[in-house]
Amino acid sequence: MQDIEEITAKLIEFRNERDWAQFHNEKDLAIALNIEAGELLEAFLWRGAEEAKVEKVKEELADVLAYAFLMAEKYGFDVKQIVLDKIEKNAQKYPVEKSKGTATKYNEL
Amino acid sequence: MQDIEEITAKLIEFRNERDWAQFHNEKDLAIALNIEAGELLEAFLWRGAEEAKVEKVKEELADVLAYAFLMAEKYGFDVKQIVLDKIEKNAQKYPVEKSKGTATKYNEL
Amino acid sequence: MQDIEEITAKLIEFRNERDWAQFHNEKDLAIALNIEAGELLEAFLWRGAEEAKVEKVKEELADVLAYAFLMAEKYGFDVKQIVLDKIEKNAQKYPVEKSKGTATKYNEL
Amino acid sequence: MQDIEEITAKLIEFRNERDWAQFHNEKDLAIALNIEAGELLEAFLWRGAEEAKVEKVKEELADVLAYAFLMAEKYGFDVKQIVLDKIEKNAQKYPVEKSKGTATKYNEL
Repeated sequence: MQDIEEITAKLIEFRNERDWAQFHNEKDLAIALNIEAGELLEAFLWRGAEEAKVEKVKEELADVLAYAFLMAEKYGFDVKQIVLDKIEKNAQKYPVEKSKGTATKYNEL
Repeated sequence: MQDIEEITAKLIEFRNERDWAQFHNEKDLAIALNIEAGELLEAFLWRGAEEAKVEKVKEELADVLAYAFLMAEKYGFDVKQIVLDKIEKNAQKYPVEKSKGTATKYNEL
Repeated sequence: MQDIEEITAKLIEFRNERDWAQFHNEKDLAIALNIEAGELLEAFLWRGAEEAKVEKVKEELADVLAYAFLMAEKYGFDVKQIVLDKIEKNAQKYPVEKSKGTATKYNEL
Repeated sequence: MQDIEEITAKLIEFRNERDWAQFHNEKDLAIALNIEAGELLEAFLWRGAEEAKVEKVKEELADVLAYAFLMAEKYGFDVKQIVLDKIEKNAQKYPVEKSKGTATKYNEL
């Protein structure tokens, strides 16, 4: 089995054992993901990029990923497909010759 | 090859072609992830849970996932491992008998 | 004294007593504001709009406001002026006749 | 009239002219505030703290403040009171003698 499929199956199992599907509507999943993203960001507050506590980063990033996988599952998205599609789309917004070595946003390139 | 390994390789290839590793420090990756999480949330603003535009959700969720995978790669985390570890940890914070059918946070259970 | 001026003076006094100005660069203030915004959002997770705990909302909203005022002070912005300017700008993006009773974003009106 | 009262009155007038009160439930106001906080953060992405575009910071901070004031109004909070109350509470969590010159979070002091 592919790893994303396996992780998702475990997340769904965890959720169903607790009868939590009733709370996991699309909007609250997006909210939950944002809350976890904020907690991830907290690992870097008032610090240099390399000074975050690795354990905290690991746990909060895992939470972000968990909600992202649950959301993909809710919509029936194939995680690999949607990320690869987005890379392709970004390749058009950020052609190598224009964007190499610059952090400028595509609409200002 | 496993999915996550393949997606991550594509993301790194896209980044390296544009010479963007120089911008991708840990803190700015966490910031980028938060910005994308906010854009995902925008798909649900002033709407019911089922009224978000699926195309927008798909694209913004792909962005969130992309930064999450890049962050995992930056720290050398194994995505599958950290999510499964977190599920196990959450299973202790939310034992089935106490948390079944309730959305109460663990510290108030 | 006007209330925003008074609140800001108290925030600066609190900060200076603790010698925290050294941490309060513009970027980390924006990060702190986002973290608090995420904590505010947590008051609504898995709940209806009217089911948030008022005490939690009050405290997290106060934190958001505190960082917003500190950020305005850092840049030397006049809070009243920038909000009134933005209202005027939004009035042009959202003319009454086009936007009345609809939540559609200006670029789709 | 005090500044906050005046700003809030203008925000409510803008909202009512467009008949938007129907969308402004507490949860979506918290979501809107988060989205704007993310846009504010975008001004700092891939940049040093002092390299954000001031015009963008000004506009996004104004949006954050607008939703924060609308939220306070929705709950009937007195902005000055809740921020001053929070400062007092934080003064107990962060006593000067323990927290001076350190960015450590109160639960680790």
